[in-house]
Amino acid sequence: MNQLEMMQELSIKNDTKIVLLVLDGVGGAPMEPGGPTELEAARTPNLDALAARSSCGMSVAVAPGITPGSGPGHLALFGYDPLQYEIGRGVLEALGIGFDLQPTDVAARGNFCTVDADGLITDRRAGRISTEEGAKRVELLRSIPLPGVQTFVEPVKEYRLVLVLRGEGLAGDIHDTDPQQTGVAPLAAVALSPAAERTAELANQWIAEAAHILADHPPANMVTLRGFAVDPSLPKFPEIYNFRAAGVAVYPMYKGVSRLVGMDVLPVDGDLPADEFETVRQHWDEYDFFFVHIKKTDSTGEDGNFEGKVRVIETLDEALPALLDLEPDVLVVTGDHSTPALLKSHSWHALPILLSARTGRRDQVTEFGETACLGGGLGRIRHVDIMPLALAHALRLNKYGA
Amino acid sequence: MNQLEMMQELSIKNDTKIVLLVLDGVGGAPMEPGGPTELEAARTPNLDALAARSSCGMSVAVAPGITPGSGPGHLALFGYDPLQYEIGRGVLEALGIGFDLQPTDVAARGNFCTVDADGLITDRRAGRISTEEGAKRVELLRSIPLPGVQTFVEPVKEYRLVLVLRGEGLAGDIHDTDPQQTGVAPLAAVALSPAAERTAELANQWIAEAAHILADHPPANMVTLRGFAVDPSLPKFPEIYNFRAAGVAVYPMYKGVSRLVGMDVLPVDGDLPADEFETVRQHWDEYDFFFVHIKKTDSTGEDGNFEGKVRVIETLDEALPALLDLEPDVLVVTGDHSTPALLKSHSWHALPILLSARTGRRDQVTEFGETACLGGGLGRIRHVDIMPLALAHALRLNKYGA
Repeated sequence: MNQLEMMQELSIKNDTKIVLLVLDGVGGAPMEPGGPTELEAARTPNLDALAARSSCGMSVAVAPGITPGSGPGHLALFGYDPLQYEIGRGVLEALGIGFDLQPTDVAARGNFCTVDADGLITDRRAGRISTEEGAKRVELLRSIPLPGVQTFVEPVKEYRLVLVLRGEGLAGDIHDTDPQQTGVAPLAAVALSPAAERTAELANQWIAEAAHILADHPPANMVTLRGFAVDPSLPKFPEIYNFRAAGVAVYPMYKGVSRLVGMDVLPVDGDLPADEFETVRQHWDEYDFFFVHIKKTDSTGEDGNFEGKVRVIETLDEALPALLDLEPDVLVVTGDHSTPALLKSHSWHALPILLSARTGRRDQVTEFGETACLGGGLGRIRHVDIMPLALAHALRLNKYGA
Repeated sequence: MNQLEMMQELSIKNDTKIVLLVLDGVGGAPMEPGGPTELEAARTPNLDALAARSSCGMSVAVAPGITPGSGPGHLALFGYDPLQYEIGRGVLEALGIGFDLQPTDVAARGNFCTVDADGLITDRRAGRISTEEGAKRVELLRSIPLPGVQTFVEPVKEYRLVLVLRGEGLAGDIHDTDPQQTGVAPLAAVALSPAAERTAELANQWIAEAAHILADHPPANMVTLRGFAVDPSLPKFPEIYNFRAAGVAVYPMYKGVSRLVGMDVLPVDGDLPADEFETVRQHWDEYDFFFVHIKKTDSTGEDGNFEGKVRVIETLDEALPALLDLEPDVLVVTGDHSTPALLKSHSWHALPILLSARTGRRDQVTEFGETACLGGGLGRIRHVDIMPLALAHALRLNKYGA
C-alpha cells in the first residue's frame, strides 16, 4: 500500500480546516559564510510568534541533494512521491502559461533554434530572440493544419513556445526532437510505444511545415520539440483526502498543478499575499483545505536579489494576521524548495517548516528560520510527510490497524 | 529510478573539487557513563574550526542498529545502497590482501580447521594456528592442479586464506562448505544455480586434494570455504557521477573497494595522514573527486585502545591543514562506521559528519564530535545521502523535473 492509498483508506470527514501556505523557494543560504539567510534577515514578527506556538522542523523536498523543479516540489507537498508520479515538461509548460489543457491533450515544449544551410543546428535557442520576435513566429505557425486534430501554438518567452495537439487517440511517449547539442540536425519525433505512432507522425508533419515557414525568418529558422506529455491523471485530492480542496495562486503554473490534483482554483483579485488571503476568507466556509501559493519569494531568489526576497517575506509577514484571524485548525508554512539568492536558482537545501495546531507539542523554537527550525519538534521530515501530518492534526485520519 | 540511476541522469561536469575524508571507525562511545567518546576526548582544533564553518550532523551508515562491515560501510559512503549492492566476502577478503582480482575470478575465503578421525570438525579455526603455520600450509596447497583453470591460494592471517579460481565460465553462487558448527563434517560445495555447477565441482575436487595433503599437518588438517563470489560489477563512479575519481588509501582492502567502484588508486609514499594528503596534493589537478581513507582510527578501536585512537585522531587533525590548503569546494569528513574502543569492534552507532562548502548554511556546531553534531544543520542523514549532498554543493547536479 503506497502512501496515497493509505490516505485514501484512513481519511475521514471532519469540520476542521487546513491551510497549506507555500512560500515558493523560501529556503535560502548565507551570502557570506556565517551570515543569515533571506528568511533569517527578514523582520517577521508574525511568523516568529506563530513559530513559537507551533511545532517546527526541517523538511527535505524530494531527497537529500536533489534540487526539485516546480512539478516534483509541489507533488511532494501534496503527498505524491515525486519519484513515482511525474508531470511531463510539456504539460507543466502549458500550465505555466495558463493554457486550458484538456485530459487527452498532448503538449510539448518547443524551442526556436537556428540551423545552417545543411540543416545542422548552430544555436539551440535561436540567439535568444526577443519575446516579441518569438510571438510573431508563433503566429505564423498557427496556420499549420494537421489532419484530424486541432493544434494550438502558444508563445512562452523569448525562444520558447508550447505546441498542443487535441484529438482522439493521441499519446505522449515520444522522444524529444531537440538533440541537446549543436552541429547536428534536429531529430525526428520517434514514438516510444505503438500507441504514440500516430501522434509522432503528426508531430513530424507539423515540424516539416514549420521548417518550411520559418526558413525565411532567421535566426529562428527552425523549431525543436521536447517533453511531449499528457495530463498524468493523478489521483485526485477529494478522493484521497476526503475533503473539499481549493488552490489559491496568482501564477498560472500553480493554478495548473492545483487543478491537476483535483483542487478548485479560486480567483484572486490582485497579486499580493493580502489579496490571496482575502480569497481564502471569502471562500472559508466552502472548503476544508486551502493551498495558498506565494510566488515572489522564488522570483526574487532566482534574480539573486537577496534584499528583494527579504522584502517579499516581510510583506507576507505583514499580511499574515488576516490568515491567522480565520483560525485554521491546522496551518502549515513551508516552501516547495529553496531558492537562495546566492545561487540564483532552485536548490536542494532543506526547508524550514512550521505546523500550528491545537494538537501540536511545544518545542524551543521561537523564530521561523533555517537555523532556528533545526531544533524543532517535527525533526527532519520529507515533504511527502506533510499532508499526513496535517490531516492527523486536523483529526481527519483514522487509526491504522486494530 | 534508484538513486544511482538518478545520479547518472542528473550529474553534470563542473570544475569543482570534492574530497571525501573517511576516518575508518571514527565514531566512538564513552568508556564510562557520561564520559567523552574518543573524538570528543581528542584535541582537534583544526576539525573543530572546520566544523564551526561547516554544516554538521549525524549519519547512519546502513540502518539504525545495523553494524556494517567494511564492504557495506564503504558502499553506502559511495552512494550504493548496501542492501541492494553487495560485495561478496571472498572478493572482500581477496581485496583485503591486495590480490589483483580480475572481473571473472571466483574468490572464496578459506579457514583451516581441525577434523577428527571420522572427518567431523572439532575446531573451526584449527586452534588459531600462527600466521607462519598458516602460510606453510598455503604453500602446500598451491600445488593442487585443477583442470582448465588457474588457482591462487593466498595466506591472510592465522587460520585464514583466500582461494581464487581463474578461467572461463566460472560462477560464484555456491553454498559455503563451513557448517558453522563443530561435531559435523564440512559440507560439500553445492552450486546454487546451474551456471555454478562446474565451479562447485572444481571446488570439491580442490577440497578433496587439500584434505589429502593436510591430513599429515594437524591441527590444521582440513579446510573449509565460504563466501564464494565474483566481482559484483558495480556501476562505476565516472559514469554515475560524471567525474574523475581517485582513491587514496594505505590498506589493500580500501584500495580494492576504490577500484571496484571505478576510482583510480593513487600511490601513497608512507602511511601517515600527512602522506595521504601529500598524494592528494600531487594529483590535485588530475581528479574531481578524492576519497581519502584513514585506517588507524579503526585499528586502535578494534584493539580497545581508547588513548591510541585519541592519538590517531590528533595526528590526523595536525595534518589536516595541508588538505584544507588545497581549498576543496566540498569537503566531507565522516567515518564508514563506528568502532568504539569500549566494544573493540565495529558498531552501529551513528557517525558525526561535517560538510564544508560555500553553499552551506550555518549551524550552531563549533566542535566535531558525536554530541556536538547532534544539533547540526545536516540533521540526521544516511550514508547513501552523502554523495548526492556532496555533488549538490559542488554544483554538479541538474534540477530534477521541470
